[in-house]
Amino acid sequence: MKKYKNPPQSQWSSLSQRPTQSFAEIEETVKAIFKEIQTKGDNAVAKYTSLFDGIKLDTFLVAENEIKEAEKQISEDLKHAIALAKSNIYKFHSAQKTNKIEVETTEGVVCWQEKRPIQKVGLYIPGGTAPLFSTVLMLAIPAKIAGCEEIILCSPPDKNGKINPAILYAAHLCGVTNIFKVGGIQAIAALTFGTASIPKVYKIFGPGNQYVTVAKQVATQFDTAIDMPAGPSELLVYADDSSIPAFVASDLLSQAEHGTDSQVILVSNSQKIIDEVENEIENQIQVLPRKEIAQKAIENSKLILIKKENDALAFINEYAPEHLIICSKNETFFIDGIQNAGSVFIGNFTPESAGDYASGTNHTLPTNGFSKNYSGVNLDSFSKAITFQKIAEHGLKNIGNAIEIMAEAEGLQAHKNAITLRLNALNNE
Amino acid sequence: MKKYKNPPQSQWSSLSQRPTQSFAEIEETVKAIFKEIQTKGDNAVAKYTSLFDGIKLDTFLVAENEIKEAEKQISEDLKHAIALAKSNIYKFHSAQKTNKIEVETTEGVVCWQEKRPIQKVGLYIPGGTAPLFSTVLMLAIPAKIAGCEEIILCSPPDKNGKINPAILYAAHLCGVTNIFKVGGIQAIAALTFGTASIPKVYKIFGPGNQYVTVAKQVATQFDTAIDMPAGPSELLVYADDSSIPAFVASDLLSQAEHGTDSQVILVSNSQKIIDEVENEIENQIQVLPRKEIAQKAIENSKLILIKKENDALAFINEYAPEHLIICSKNETFFIDGIQNAGSVFIGNFTPESAGDYASGTNHTLPTNGFSKNYSGVNLDSFSKAITFQKIAEHGLKNIGNAIEIMAEAEGLQAHKNAITLRLNALNNE
Repeated sequence: MKKYKNPPQSQWSSLSQRPTQSFAEIEETVKAIFKEIQTKGDNAVAKYTSLFDGIKLDTFLVAENEIKEAEKQISEDLKHAIALAKSNIYKFHSAQKTNKIEVETTEGVVCWQEKRPIQKVGLYIPGGTAPLFSTVLMLAIPAKIAGCEEIILCSPPDKNGKINPAILYAAHLCGVTNIFKVGGIQAIAALTFGTASIPKVYKIFGPGNQYVTVAKQVATQFDTAIDMPAGPSELLVYADDSSIPAFVASDLLSQAEHGTDSQVILVSNSQKIIDEVENEIENQIQVLPRKEIAQKAIENSKLILIKKENDALAFINEYAPEHLIICSKNETFFIDGIQNAGSVFIGNFTPESAGDYASGTNHTLPTNGFSKNYSGVNLDSFSKAITFQKIAEHGLKNIGNAIEIMAEAEGLQAHKNAITLRLNALNNE
Repeated sequence: MKKYKNPPQSQWSSLSQRPTQSFAEIEETVKAIFKEIQTKGDNAVAKYTSLFDGIKLDTFLVAENEIKEAEKQISEDLKHAIALAKSNIYKFHSAQKTNKIEVETTEGVVCWQEKRPIQKVGLYIPGGTAPLFSTVLMLAIPAKIAGCEEIILCSPPDKNGKINPAILYAAHLCGVTNIFKVGGIQAIAALTFGTASIPKVYKIFGPGNQYVTVAKQVATQFDTAIDMPAGPSELLVYADDSSIPAFVASDLLSQAEHGTDSQVILVSNSQKIIDEVENEIENQIQVLPRKEIAQKAIENSKLILIKKENDALAFINEYAPEHLIICSKNETFFIDGIQNAGSVFIGNFTPESAGDYASGTNHTLPTNGFSKNYSGVNLDSFSKAITFQKIAEHGLKNIGNAIEIMAEAEGLQAHKNAITLRLNALNNE
């Protein structure tokens, strides 16, 4: 662990630095595969599935009987846990629905804004050792609430051509339209262009390794939107002497086990707390099955003593963490003052795990300092705001002249004419 | 004008095609300038300002006396027109403020969402013959309402080192923090990296030529967000026999004068209306000062007869226009059914010009079919949604077990431990 005591503000920027990721080499590979899938469709998808996932597939679509099969393999306990998580995620995201906003800005000029769903969305769920069925809930539930018509899920098959049953179960439960056994670059390319079997979508969501991350960036060059740019997961904990060091250590470790490049930071105004958390980490890490991964992330973690709360808050806003846990007597000070964070967890009994799974908030959040300029996934991520306006004859009389003057000043005579013609018609009535 | 009669659905996709823009060559230039500005800062900005704008500048910041000077040059009429537009834009965007959304998802588990402003935003306003001061209003007013701390405006200087007074006046009126005389690629690069004189921002807004468009795309590779991808401006009018052909023609021409690549489309269920609009266009175009530009755009415009309203609506949703005017007896049918459009104008007395300038809606809208997956600029464009949660001890008892089961099933033991430690502490109390 790296330790810092009251680092001067000039050092904050380097303390906030994330590992630089150079994707230049990967980008060439990604673009080549995109081109091939754009022209050859399913054949190219099959080729790369064979190459990267080690399985030859004739069909990518998951069949109904596979979903029924998966349902049988899920324990009742897990089903109940998923049901609770689903219920909370549903409640929190349903509450984010916005009503039509209507304003008569000038008499006779009525403007309104309405949200309409993005009709076709693609959800990417990684495969591998940790089957992220929780991410299925986080993406499919708001997509369904928003009213997306086609919700397409892609996830890589294992060597036997299967997708983890928990992923299939969650996808079916949450109303995913179709599930495809396709992963990696080839999945993102298929969702971008569409193939004979996999539909083109308008926006792609979900986490992934560096290949998926770059593929999503490349997808935006082909008019597909993405949820947000991605980087390694992060947690910053602010803990004063009202915190419980064992709890803080467990939270830092839950972040550390995600990957060796996970970003783990503790900021405290108490050297005693920092020392105790450090001890607790050393104890707790011993029994973790993913100890080696966590160990590497912890080696790069930062323990930062900042005496003044004002400075701590300013540093946190500069760092802009994905996850922020606040265990402080003055939690209101931090809640009110936080400007840049993906999701904030408050108090000793609010671990990050709660938001990762079941409290109801979304766990697809901006990393890499992106909480300065991006929201985490929320209901609005699945819709667009459209504006409408209807102007009555007397409304146009009220604002027409202002429009004529402004259009003229911008040198756009036809814009002015569209008003003048109408005003003349009204004056001649 | 190109005419189509009841085109079969198989033709809709090609009818919806926008001109393909290949930016590969420009991209190299843009990246080279970005690199130079990243390393050499203001010196490189000065170099490219001299090269592209033909003026050597020592300072880029617009001085207070220049703003005072500009104010004197604006007529009282224009000031009043701008004041009316500002008032309407302010009213409509203020109404978009969202309250804190708080839900107790399970007893003892309180989750909420709050919006916080993006602290630093950059507004790009093109120079040239048409000084787009209206875009200053459209971007600076919601930025101010959202609470952005630094609102930085860049616009290219003319050969005398000046920015159009209407742009300066509008910027000052709307509370822009600082205005810089920098345009094109060098402006976007300066806002992306920051220089000694121009601050780095977190999100860049605003229109521009193809160089600015590509520069904004490149900016996203350096962690800066942008409002949306851009393409040539577009208008689709749906007009039945309740429409007034002269009005429809004036709207199509106001779109056509924007640029030779403007997309202008009329869909109607009436051949008579189509013929009359065509005649009106030929008459009205003669007197336009930007006739040559409009003529070229009109040559590529499409007049499409679609007999059934259902089909017309489906085609419009496939096309996904930036601006949509509906002049129909059955306007409600279209309002309810529209899925993909940037801004919708309803009725004979609601020209696009109204939304371009003064009705209150925003005119920074998704082109190129992007209304399928992007919103136009609105209040939320200037803020991020942050989630918060606070779990009481009994709350964790209510959801803790579900989290343990899910974390275990995903193979994330440390995530489970963070819950188990706390539940054990509660059980031992």
